Amino acid sequence: KSVMNPKRCAACRYLRRRCPKDCVFSPFFPPNNPEKFACVHRIYGAGNVSKMLQQLPVQTRAEAVESLCFEATCRIEDPVYGCVGMISLLQTQIQKTERLLARTQAEITVSQIKHSQNQHSEFM
Amino acid sequence: KSVMNPKRCAACRYLRRRCPKDCVFSPFFPPNNPEKFACVHRIYGAGNVSKMLQQLPVQTRAEAVESLCFEATCRIEDPVYGCVGMISLLQTQIQKTERLLARTQAEITVSQIKHSQNQHSEFM
Repeated sequence: KSVMNPKRCAACRYLRRRCPKDCVFSPFFPPNNPEKFACVHRIYGAGNVSKMLQQLPVQTRAEAVESLCFEATCRIEDPVYGCVGMISLLQTQIQKTERLLARTQAEITVSQIKHSQNQHSEFM
Repeated sequence: KSVMNPKRCAACRYLRRRCPKDCVFSPFFPPNNPEKFACVHRIYGAGNVSKMLQQLPVQTRAEAVESLCFEATCRIEDPVYGCVGMISLLQTQIQKTERLLARTQAEITVSQIKHSQNQHSEFM
């Protein structure tokens, strides 16, 4: 079968169908990476992915496919939190870094005050 | 019809079906919030959501529903990047904060060196 159409995209191979000339999947799911389509199919379903892509301008579809694949991979790895778990981790990291920054800036202020007091007492 | 079963959950209302006693959706999709189910249905499809929830231990399903709703809402608002756009923004914010922190810590080091040089010259 695949001898008849060796260029069938990964999505059409997975769905065991002919790959049409205007296939919505074929620009983004090359036959050498079957796992990529399997991921989005497992989480969103082929029909939903096709619908989402068709509703987008052609030039934005590659980015949309990448973000859908990323979210799907995260959801397979972490079925409870998906990539929202990553968002929580990043928010915690920002809060920690901001707290550390505030403390460091406070240290500067304190040392500047001390320094100016020292200079003041030298001239007394 | 809804008079006969006023407690039908938002998912079963949306799918125009009877809400079974062991409905996988009903603990998480109360009838007073139809939008919540509409979002996940639009992005994942009811069948995929049901399948994902059934594969999870019961005590983790509420969190899974919240993260799926969050991702679905992000995808509806930003059909190209979804919540991956938010991850990129957070990563940029972390990089900015870390650069600012490094600069602030360098300032402290410089001012400490200056201060110790001043003290040194005072004793000369």
